[in-house]
Amino acid sequence: MPELTERVWTRPHLLTLEDLSADEIVSALDTAQALKEVSTRSIKKVPALRGKVMVNLFFEDSTRTKTSFSLAGQRMSADIVDFSVSTSSVSKGETLRDTARNIEAMGVDVIVVRHRSSGAPYLLSQIVKCSVINAGDGSHEHPTQGLLDLFTMRETFAARGRKISDLHVAIVGDIANSRVARSNIWGLTKLGAKVTLVGPTTLVPNDFSKLGVEVSNNLDDILPRVDVVNMLRVQFERLTSAAFPSVREYSRFFGMTAERLARCKKDVLLLHPGPMNRGLEITTGVADGGNSAILRQVANGLAVRMAVLYLCVGANR
Amino acid sequence: MPELTERVWTRPHLLTLEDLSADEIVSALDTAQALKEVSTRSIKKVPALRGKVMVNLFFEDSTRTKTSFSLAGQRMSADIVDFSVSTSSVSKGETLRDTARNIEAMGVDVIVVRHRSSGAPYLLSQIVKCSVINAGDGSHEHPTQGLLDLFTMRETFAARGRKISDLHVAIVGDIANSRVARSNIWGLTKLGAKVTLVGPTTLVPNDFSKLGVEVSNNLDDILPRVDVVNMLRVQFERLTSAAFPSVREYSRFFGMTAERLARCKKDVLLLHPGPMNRGLEITTGVADGGNSAILRQVANGLAVRMAVLYLCVGANR
Amino acid sequence: MPELTERVWTRPHLLTLEDLSADEIVSALDTAQALKEVSTRSIKKVPALRGKVMVNLFFEDSTRTKTSFSLAGQRMSADIVDFSVSTSSVSKGETLRDTARNIEAMGVDVIVVRHRSSGAPYLLSQIVKCSVINAGDGSHEHPTQGLLDLFTMRETFAARGRKISDLHVAIVGDIANSRVARSNIWGLTKLGAKVTLVGPTTLVPNDFSKLGVEVSNNLDDILPRVDVVNMLRVQFERLTSAAFPSVREYSRFFGMTAERLARCKKDVLLLHPGPMNRGLEITTGVADGGNSAILRQVANGLAVRMAVLYLCVGANR
Repeated sequence: MPELTERVWTRPHLLTLEDLSADEIVSALDTAQALKEVSTRSIKKVPALRGKVMVNLFFEDSTRTKTSFSLAGQRMSADIVDFSVSTSSVSKGETLRDTARNIEAMGVDVIVVRHRSSGAPYLLSQIVKCSVINAGDGSHEHPTQGLLDLFTMRETFAARGRKISDLHVAIVGDIANSRVARSNIWGLTKLGAKVTLVGPTTLVPNDFSKLGVEVSNNLDDILPRVDVVNMLRVQFERLTSAAFPSVREYSRFFGMTAERLARCKKDVLLLHPGPMNRGLEITTGVADGGNSAILRQVANGLAVRMAVLYLCVGANR
Repeated sequence: MPELTERVWTRPHLLTLEDLSADEIVSALDTAQALKEVSTRSIKKVPALRGKVMVNLFFEDSTRTKTSFSLAGQRMSADIVDFSVSTSSVSKGETLRDTARNIEAMGVDVIVVRHRSSGAPYLLSQIVKCSVINAGDGSHEHPTQGLLDLFTMRETFAARGRKISDLHVAIVGDIANSRVARSNIWGLTKLGAKVTLVGPTTLVPNDFSKLGVEVSNNLDDILPRVDVVNMLRVQFERLTSAAFPSVREYSRFFGMTAERLARCKKDVLLLHPGPMNRGLEITTGVADGGNSAILRQVANGLAVRMAVLYLCVGANR
Repeated sequence: MPELTERVWTRPHLLTLEDLSADEIVSALDTAQALKEVSTRSIKKVPALRGKVMVNLFFEDSTRTKTSFSLAGQRMSADIVDFSVSTSSVSKGETLRDTARNIEAMGVDVIVVRHRSSGAPYLLSQIVKCSVINAGDGSHEHPTQGLLDLFTMRETFAARGRKISDLHVAIVGDIANSRVARSNIWGLTKLGAKVTLVGPTTLVPNDFSKLGVEVSNNLDDILPRVDVVNMLRVQFERLTSAAFPSVREYSRFFGMTAERLARCKKDVLLLHPGPMNRGLEITTGVADGGNSAILRQVANGLAVRMAVLYLCVGANR
């Protein structure tokens, strides 16, 4: 493990990327890099979190993110319990506060929480003494997704002798409702990248320019200039008919197609947080093509989550 | 582990506290006391049940109790499988008997069972050769809850030089339908405590006086005389309109409030099995105040379940 | 572990018994035999798959099969994650292909898959680089059930100095829709047994005779001649009213009763894949009687699944 890292990172929680300094972000990425090779071993296990207890407290369904955290914890030798909420006392009217305190009283080292309300992980971190890791809160932040996106960009461009601070990144889609977008914005701007948000005016409010990013409603204009395109998932469930006229219309103006890819720099990097709506925000050909790092993002997600668990729970504690 | 304990406790099952002798109860509490510190270690793990297999067979939802048993098992190094019933063959019409025999045939050491029918764990123990632990059966018993309540009382009053046999305990609420109340009554009377059951006449039948306890319908009369008040959860789902006129009415006569706490002995111990209906059977101020041991009960529950697993499965077997 | 086995078995996947050679089937049975005693130890654990990761990817409910695979994996020291599908991204429209690739990208060694579509495990094995084990696909195959049935027959008759190639086996019930029947047919005929399929004409199409088996519609005629009767489960959910007039009618002609058992050879072996509809395809007296190996099948299922995991994931890899 890089020694510097443990000196830079002293937080017990990971709640947002907004909170982190550039040095802290870099230390998380460095730790993830050191841990990534564990997943390629025949015996995918290190003892770093042996005897530590991790609880998945998911108030929203997310098998992918929960599985990624569980595998990350197992790979570090932690004990893991899912506190499934649909079948839990929460349905008997127990508050978030009481649920969290009860879990903590059972002798837990870290709670990984997903919640539909922005700020729930912060609230939790004020209530309990154990570590809290935000696995997505409302439309606020999804910091481990932000870190894995940064990790994937850094890894890709390092091979070409470039740094994140050299990059221009487009984030495309429903920015207004996206926690992935927010975590990306904070992480990228802190590391010095140039960021342009792209989408229909209804989904990309001009307010975002206050965060030090550019805003555009024309994807085709932007594409030739950027090094990375991060395509957000279209969340049917969150879209009201007012946001845009139709899914087909969205796809026509903001979907990533072979034609659009041809307008990009040749070695543009395409990201997507998954799960994809193939044929909507991205075509199958592009998703599975050479510019796409979508599966590498999943693999990197595991390394990043191992790193975050290690830094918050395992190192120096 | 206390040596005496392993000589006193020879049962493979924990089905009820009614079955146990005072010596057996004390041996379980002593074992829990010896195991409690494991949960405070940095590496929360002992090898006592390594290679033993525990199955959670829950026919009623209870994330809290199931999580407590799972963490207890993990902390003893057992392998754990949840045999979730809503998604199981039971829904295909398989009987409890066949389900149990199938689980046993897979090479299992202990089944932790919750069932809506009183007596289901006993039936199970007649069918299988492995250990059976009752995690709550209908309105019959919840023996590990009874033990953790006893443990919490013993721990609290030992610090003041008093024993359970010196105590007067009030159990307040829907006694008629409460498995927690029944396990508490058996445990407390066996250890020599004085018990008074308190609630509206519809919920505290006079029959209970046959169990060697007192019955009262007036909480305010009782409070100044008791050392412990165990507030039961109001089970909306079990209450018929006939039982009492309204929730507000219940709260007015039987809820624990700051005013009622002021009528109690200064160092009265307040217990609640959780999850609480804050503002109904207990106010938030009282629940979170200095007399409340509610979170300590949760922590002690883990120690008690580790002890019960150890005694039934690990010790001398 | 038998040395020969590792030389015979080189497959990373178990998709069907149709694919396997007789030698491969025998090597799986031999490995299961070597591993069976692990489940009788006090410490039920061997390190064969330590640090390997197994994912249960079940698109159909099956607590029994999933539990058996999970216990098999744990007993070999694998790390296990359930990728539960009802609460997963699949419900957000993710395809099987994307789900599988995502799971693989997380660094997984084996996917155990159940799916309502015949051929889904094969498709999966074409998509991912990790091992794939078929835990039941549509009405196609259920190869580990086939192996455990073979194992149970071999074990039973070896004690009497007989081999599978000496046996005449009747498979009774809804052959047309049964993956268990198909895997049994392939396994038995490859090992040289004589197989007769028995059921109403609507459920036992004559086409099956092409597979080298006999077809009969009269159970009472067949019983005196066979060494093994494998009673299939009546799948209410799959039966249309056209298939047979009524459940009672089915039971009268094809249910295994004490009267029918009296017509069989004295030491006939009765199998059932479970869960049973007691009183329908088999009476309680017969199911629990001396000729029934139903619970031994469950125990053997665990040994067979340990063997398959070992051969596909652990041995020589």
